[in-house]
Amino acid sequence: MTGMAPRDTDWETRVRTSFARQAFMATLGAEIVALAPGRVELGAAFHPGLTQQHGFFHAGVTSTLADSAAGYAALSLFGAGHGVLTTEFKMNLLNPGRGERMRAVGRVIKPGRTLTVASADVYGVGDFGEVHIATGLFTMIAMPGIED
Amino acid sequence: MTGMAPRDTDWETRVRTSFARQAFMATLGAEIVALAPGRVELGAAFHPGLTQQHGFFHAGVTSTLADSAAGYAALSLFGAGHGVLTTEFKMNLLNPGRGERMRAVGRVIKPGRTLTVASADVYGVGDFGEVHIATGLFTMIAMPGIED
Amino acid sequence: MTGMAPRDTDWETRVRTSFARQAFMATLGAEIVALAPGRVELGAAFHPGLTQQHGFFHAGVTSTLADSAAGYAALSLFGAGHGVLTTEFKMNLLNPGRGERMRAVGRVIKPGRTLTVASADVYGVGDFGEVHIATGLFTMIAMPGIED
Amino acid sequence: MTGMAPRDTDWETRVRTSFARQAFMATLGAEIVALAPGRVELGAAFHPGLTQQHGFFHAGVTSTLADSAAGYAALSLFGAGHGVLTTEFKMNLLNPGRGERMRAVGRVIKPGRTLTVASADVYGVGDFGEVHIATGLFTMIAMPGIED
Repeated sequence: MTGMAPRDTDWETRVRTSFARQAFMATLGAEIVALAPGRVELGAAFHPGLTQQHGFFHAGVTSTLADSAAGYAALSLFGAGHGVLTTEFKMNLLNPGRGERMRAVGRVIKPGRTLTVASADVYGVGDFGEVHIATGLFTMIAMPGIED
Repeated sequence: MTGMAPRDTDWETRVRTSFARQAFMATLGAEIVALAPGRVELGAAFHPGLTQQHGFFHAGVTSTLADSAAGYAALSLFGAGHGVLTTEFKMNLLNPGRGERMRAVGRVIKPGRTLTVASADVYGVGDFGEVHIATGLFTMIAMPGIED
Repeated sequence: MTGMAPRDTDWETRVRTSFARQAFMATLGAEIVALAPGRVELGAAFHPGLTQQHGFFHAGVTSTLADSAAGYAALSLFGAGHGVLTTEFKMNLLNPGRGERMRAVGRVIKPGRTLTVASADVYGVGDFGEVHIATGLFTMIAMPGIED
Repeated sequence: MTGMAPRDTDWETRVRTSFARQAFMATLGAEIVALAPGRVELGAAFHPGLTQQHGFFHAGVTSTLADSAAGYAALSLFGAGHGVLTTEFKMNLLNPGRGERMRAVGRVIKPGRTLTVASADVYGVGDFGEVHIATGLFTMIAMPGIED
């Protein structure tokens, strides 16, 4: 993370404000666990409304947390007055989505003026310890003139 | 789709039963629109709980619908007594998630005993007509001995 | 492909000139088979220098042809004075790379001023007929001020 | 890499033998730089036959090295009598392929009996130091009964 300097001193407020506007995060019960320039960690507790057919976290929940963690890691490095959109991503689902809660860690790999590449890793946390549920790669685009 | 013959005459019941067990589909308000061997179409109406920070469908909703459409397209071709899990996928988000509803079409590209490759396309539907929101590629794995 | 109108009447010359500059295409023995706005087909004959450990076309050859086909499909729709770079791609390898020759078809899915999304499909052709070796999704970026 | 124990004491010979059979590696001038269970580093020197239209390493060369590095990282953990095939991968190209040589590092993220997930990172090395050219995610499949 060395050298991941924010361009905007107000980056933390902008990330928290945008996150609070993502109503789907509230639907999932997701919250910000930790914030640093170029690194964002989100968490969500298990509940039955988030499951797939075998009772695990649905891969869509895993992917949504990963996407938001990666997206806000990117936004934390954008200049003021730029919004963030995901242009594409890829996820590998490594283990079933077990646990009492999930945590998703987004990290910027390559910041850029237009495109930012980030990774995201999702872990399931329970009495068994921690399991690596998913890893992914994301491309985010900075949209000038869009308030986030 | 020619040649996509189901191995199990009961395929439609198995797909509908498994879909009904995905509680996250109910959370999203998603439903099955059309079913054929190797092709599944899902739909979901817009509501504010599904949005990202600009008021569009969250990319996580788009991806979840795509994942389930592709997964059930794969399951429709599995033999009896095999469950389906997504091992990996990739999405390109082509346009913002606008519309009064989304429809997601999953199609099997290459069926297999262990791995099945499928595509998914998601469209936003509104008074503007239809817009191509996302396209993706998915690898599904058949899990013997797992009830779906 | 309807509606895929080139912005530059000189598009075909630009694609052929750039392709001729890709020395790696000559290393592979690849050539342009067909060109249309938003659609490019490349071909390459099998030779032992292109193989992986089981004697099939190496996945790297498959991917290279797919990448160039998708990239030139994108470039065919760019305005004059813009070069093309691949920003990311994903390939699913559907069947072993068998055949006396491969053909790779790149198609633009969503043209854009900055980013263009394209697909590519690669087929092996031999006395067995034709087999679908690989399918992929690509994001290309238009670089203003770079001669291709 | 802790805990990445090879199942076959003969793993190094099997990796080196299979690599030597990949004729496309010789075409690229690629060689093994370092080997450990679950981690493989390959290198290749720049030469004009490997370039794209702007004179950089072609993305296909980058991807091929990444694919082979990831594939042999996976194979190093397979049991005896199992060959390796790439089922799918995704690459993000972070910087142009500059340098006098490239090095590609493949690492197993999640070993498995059937599927193994690995990452690969490619670096360009020159008098400018080292630049991160690409990062990718790969799924490899273990093929019983196939000699590698």
